[in-house]
Amino acid sequence: MRKILVIGAGKSASYLIKYLLEKSESENLIVIVGDVNFSHAKKLTHNHDNAQAIQLDIHDKSSRQNAIKNCDIVVSMLPARFHIEAAKDCISFGKHMVTASYVSEGMQKLNKAAAQKGLVFMNEIGVDPGIDHMSAMQVIDRIRDKGGKIILFESFTGGLVAPESDNNLWHYKFTWNPRNVVVAGQGGAAKFLQEGTYKYIPYNRLFRRTEFLDVEGYGRFEAYANRDSLKYQSAYGLNNAKTLYRGTMRRVGFSRAWNIFVQLGMTDDEYSIDDSENMSYRDFVNAFLPYSPTDSVELKFRHALKIDQDDIVWDKLLELDLFSNKKMVGLKKATPAQILQKILMDSWTLAEDDKDMIVMYHKFGYELNGEKHQIDSTMVTLGEDQTYTAMAKTVGLPVAIATLAILNEKITTPGVQIPITKEVYDPILKELEAYDITFKETEVPYLGYNQLNL
Amino acid sequence: MRKILVIGAGKSASYLIKYLLEKSESENLIVIVGDVNFSHAKKLTHNHDNAQAIQLDIHDKSSRQNAIKNCDIVVSMLPARFHIEAAKDCISFGKHMVTASYVSEGMQKLNKAAAQKGLVFMNEIGVDPGIDHMSAMQVIDRIRDKGGKIILFESFTGGLVAPESDNNLWHYKFTWNPRNVVVAGQGGAAKFLQEGTYKYIPYNRLFRRTEFLDVEGYGRFEAYANRDSLKYQSAYGLNNAKTLYRGTMRRVGFSRAWNIFVQLGMTDDEYSIDDSENMSYRDFVNAFLPYSPTDSVELKFRHALKIDQDDIVWDKLLELDLFSNKKMVGLKKATPAQILQKILMDSWTLAEDDKDMIVMYHKFGYELNGEKHQIDSTMVTLGEDQTYTAMAKTVGLPVAIATLAILNEKITTPGVQIPITKEVYDPILKELEAYDITFKETEVPYLGYNQLNL
Repeated sequence: MRKILVIGAGKSASYLIKYLLEKSESENLIVIVGDVNFSHAKKLTHNHDNAQAIQLDIHDKSSRQNAIKNCDIVVSMLPARFHIEAAKDCISFGKHMVTASYVSEGMQKLNKAAAQKGLVFMNEIGVDPGIDHMSAMQVIDRIRDKGGKIILFESFTGGLVAPESDNNLWHYKFTWNPRNVVVAGQGGAAKFLQEGTYKYIPYNRLFRRTEFLDVEGYGRFEAYANRDSLKYQSAYGLNNAKTLYRGTMRRVGFSRAWNIFVQLGMTDDEYSIDDSENMSYRDFVNAFLPYSPTDSVELKFRHALKIDQDDIVWDKLLELDLFSNKKMVGLKKATPAQILQKILMDSWTLAEDDKDMIVMYHKFGYELNGEKHQIDSTMVTLGEDQTYTAMAKTVGLPVAIATLAILNEKITTPGVQIPITKEVYDPILKELEAYDITFKETEVPYLGYNQLNL
Repeated sequence: MRKILVIGAGKSASYLIKYLLEKSESENLIVIVGDVNFSHAKKLTHNHDNAQAIQLDIHDKSSRQNAIKNCDIVVSMLPARFHIEAAKDCISFGKHMVTASYVSEGMQKLNKAAAQKGLVFMNEIGVDPGIDHMSAMQVIDRIRDKGGKIILFESFTGGLVAPESDNNLWHYKFTWNPRNVVVAGQGGAAKFLQEGTYKYIPYNRLFRRTEFLDVEGYGRFEAYANRDSLKYQSAYGLNNAKTLYRGTMRRVGFSRAWNIFVQLGMTDDEYSIDDSENMSYRDFVNAFLPYSPTDSVELKFRHALKIDQDDIVWDKLLELDLFSNKKMVGLKKATPAQILQKILMDSWTLAEDDKDMIVMYHKFGYELNGEKHQIDSTMVTLGEDQTYTAMAKTVGLPVAIATLAILNEKITTPGVQIPITKEVYDPILKELEAYDITFKETEVPYLGYNQLNL
């Protein structure tokens, strides 16, 4: 029996463990699920004969090392900052490792040691990053194999609420870490490449520079730019592409409304609001508006943000109870971002029977035999319930499939990897299709950003 | 003869040294001017019999310590970050010290040691901080002595161009470190107190939340909020004040135009622009605007910022040659802020015969015998030429007067100080009057921010 150690039994581990247990008979697997909270680990094992739950604190060296010594491959589903100690143990004890996280500097430094020991350290193999890498590289390599030259690559992902559960004006609910949504786009200007020129968007303009995307059967979405669209330029071999853009998808209208919070300063996570504990939501809003002995918070707000009387954006704010003088913040020394998160969680938390949705959209512009072409590729995955979410499925399945493929020596290239080679993406994307994670490709006229010239 | 060591013969040292040399006969002073550039030091000594220029590198321990050992008091006019080593030497060798800089954490830590040795370490005794402290505390103490209770304190300072040299549409030229002007307001939300509530303004709204100030004989100004208006709340004893606001003064219209740079992201100092060296000013502007094969940079700019065809703000931009495709940035790996600074320096550098101006405006609201009152106090100082600027005068004279007062044991309270006590501000403000640095006080009706209620 081969032993797989899964560290972290959080939200994203459900599908991963389910997949591995389903394969455990035919593949001779023992799945050991370790979590700092034993009951979380226990729950996901479903008392399966080939599963074992253990209490595992990643910071407790001896129990961590014992668990790692005792397995054949380690899957870390912990937050990215907790991988590194386990990764070092994997080097020491000669174990492969799989994570869905971005390759950190610390992880990258282990590349040589992992390669020397013949260990595969596969990272960024969730959904974004993960399925985006694989699905993009499959098309890019296919275009290249035909002799085509990529001139445009745009890639968008959104974690959203499924249409059947989409019942608020923002068309949005938290399907993942709410904090990441509140502070999204902070920390520096967004940078991308458009028709050969570098473009920069500061945070305060980010949510007003969106573009629309139509997905067949799901209607229209919008996308705002990610911080660094050029991150994978050389990994993908796109050094000659004229347009590179990566973005985050929302339903149309989200960004214009969200921008109001940005403009007022409500997404700031860098300082604490005085006496936040005793503030009502209304007091919180008023802290960003000039004092007036007579004018209402509502009118000051409309005036400051130039919101017309009949603008739908206003209803989005009312829906959040933003001007309530009854609802209390109740958080001590909270930052504006923490308070805003609390207000949003009142309205945007998934209900028991709500389902989520992952949407992905790639555009590939290329030149072949002197002509310009474009392929658009889209993927939509819907969640089943609150445990088997689309997010858990699209993050967990590629991790699980890769883990088994490494055990079975189907993926063998050693060192710190991301899933951008045929060896990795072909079998994984193939298997994902069986789980309804499929991309629909369409040939469209190449427009680029020169549409007016055509 | 008493020896005064002045370290740093930069812009702000001219008046300081002039004052000390004028007093040198009657007061038995030798003024030693040390600068890393000997010729700068030499220039400001004017070959005066009681002056001595030395080459002094603050980072060269032995020459620094020799110079400090050899004097009775040290005046550091270097940038704030360079004071600390000299300050530690002053502790070691038992010398007083004077600076015009904000008290740094490192400086504050020397308080106990300085106090134990009976040394006066006077800081923040330039113009802002400096004259603002002294002039404010003089009025505050006077109101308190009468039994009044301060309910409102607002304080504004501006370093501007004198009316006779005010010949551009921005009514602004660089009279001090241009970099500080370009990045002004960055680093966190502005915080202040208005009628008992804390208010916060994010950077992207800072230049749109200005208020107007009228100064007799000089017309109207505007002010935007400083980062932390509450910094001196307890030092000034204003813990019961309902309104506390500190701001920076500009001529009317500056902030609305400046906000355009903020909105586009041109003041960002956190990342480098790719290939900045080979960009024209027009290319730089275009990097913040969407790509278009046909639309002009001008129209994209007007559209993005919603600038009407007849808006004066547009002429302000044209005046800067912002859309020039001939003028080149010519700076390698420059940040947006560095590039913007270069563009502005083309237009906003003082001409040979230009004069500068310092404006200060305080508002004191108080209750006395159950009635509310307000005193407004204003000060305007004009520069004489490019060496004896208003900035050098208002920074240098208080430093010089304080230095002599410490030597003459008129100011004796030991430890790390700022000039907020009668012992310090009374004699200094009195003497500044002889140099035409005077405040004009007016009794005005107390309005506070409840004007509509009256």
